[in-house]
Amino acid sequence: MALKLHGDPISTCTTRVITCLHEKSLDFQLLPVNLFACENKLPSFLAKNPFGQIPVLEDGDLTIFESRAITSYLSDKFKDSSTDLIRHQNLKEAAMVKLWSEVESQQFNPPISAIVHQFFVAPLQGNSPDEKIISDNLEKLGKVLDVYETRLTGNKYLAGDFYSLADLHHLSYTYYFMKTPHADLINDRPRVKAWWVDISSRPAFQKVAEGMNFGDELKQEEGSN
Amino acid sequence: MALKLHGDPISTCTTRVITCLHEKSLDFQLLPVNLFACENKLPSFLAKNPFGQIPVLEDGDLTIFESRAITSYLSDKFKDSSTDLIRHQNLKEAAMVKLWSEVESQQFNPPISAIVHQFFVAPLQGNSPDEKIISDNLEKLGKVLDVYETRLTGNKYLAGDFYSLADLHHLSYTYYFMKTPHADLINDRPRVKAWWVDISSRPAFQKVAEGMNFGDELKQEEGSN
Repeated sequence: MALKLHGDPISTCTTRVITCLHEKSLDFQLLPVNLFACENKLPSFLAKNPFGQIPVLEDGDLTIFESRAITSYLSDKFKDSSTDLIRHQNLKEAAMVKLWSEVESQQFNPPISAIVHQFFVAPLQGNSPDEKIISDNLEKLGKVLDVYETRLTGNKYLAGDFYSLADLHHLSYTYYFMKTPHADLINDRPRVKAWWVDISSRPAFQKVAEGMNFGDELKQEEGSN
Repeated sequence: MALKLHGDPISTCTTRVITCLHEKSLDFQLLPVNLFACENKLPSFLAKNPFGQIPVLEDGDLTIFESRAITSYLSDKFKDSSTDLIRHQNLKEAAMVKLWSEVESQQFNPPISAIVHQFFVAPLQGNSPDEKIISDNLEKLGKVLDVYETRLTGNKYLAGDFYSLADLHHLSYTYYFMKTPHADLINDRPRVKAWWVDISSRPAFQKVAEGMNFGDELKQEEGSN
């Protein structure tokens, strides 16, 4: 039975999971959830995820949500197929994948998601981007990237000299961040920039990035006024 | 070689790891890090964790930080000893541990840590607790606990009818939260209350809770004026 993914192909958390599915060369069916029509708040959807958030994966009779839990589940279940994203045969490498995945979740995601929200979501809600929120979070993100710059001096990827979930989890938000006027935060750090170019060039992500046009339509509309 | 844990036995993230060490019946050496003396910002500490945060675990030549990465590593390395906290022999149960561990990290931790910070850390910094931050986060936390109440109607613990890392990760912050005037948020939800009484009564946590007196000294000082 094919895997079913409920989500939206422009959403950061959905694309995190789709990138993982492509890395594992897995077939799946994408079932679109229209957030603008509040389909994520319908009882039928809340039965799958009581928090009303996308994505949700169905694998037979198993229903799982939270994007990082889904990628971890897929990387575990299909650990021997295609790229091993969790390094399950090496306890120390697996520990580094856990560590740098947590760094993404606890240190990197809060500031970058706040910035991306201001540039892409706030305008949809009729608000101007909040410059104070943006500048505060740029400062926090810069400090995290300073740590990455040092880390990537000795290692090609975050967890070591191998691509893993720890890198993959960064892709979606960084992709949108690079469309903001603050891409220099990445580009001015040579090791971080080389890492970003490397991981965002992987075919599994390139297939996903083609559809990540959130905000483009808005800009075109603004431009057509 | 014994495991070495750098941390502070009153800190939420250190106690998260110590509770896991006790659950796994592991010997370890606690090496205190004095945050008030900024020992976590010393070069010798930053070499272990460039983010300058506790706890850090050393296991032979492996150094690992981020409390949830440490508990996951310990639960994986010692999966066959004592309580199996990750259900490694059952893929579906393991998936539920991942899911509800992510819920703790992404949904539960942000509001509860903000509230605990206002009650216990802000006064140390000479600030009064910010009532707006507290009320906003109480509302968010209440919604998360509503989901838990439903979840715990069908399952004794969050991931299923077994105690796991998904429960353990909640202990430290909830323990301090129960010392605030808002403990009713837990006590008014019968299933959540029963779950809290159950998980906080486990010997592994009881040993830790004895030392979790953050804020008590402050209250005594205030009381002696």
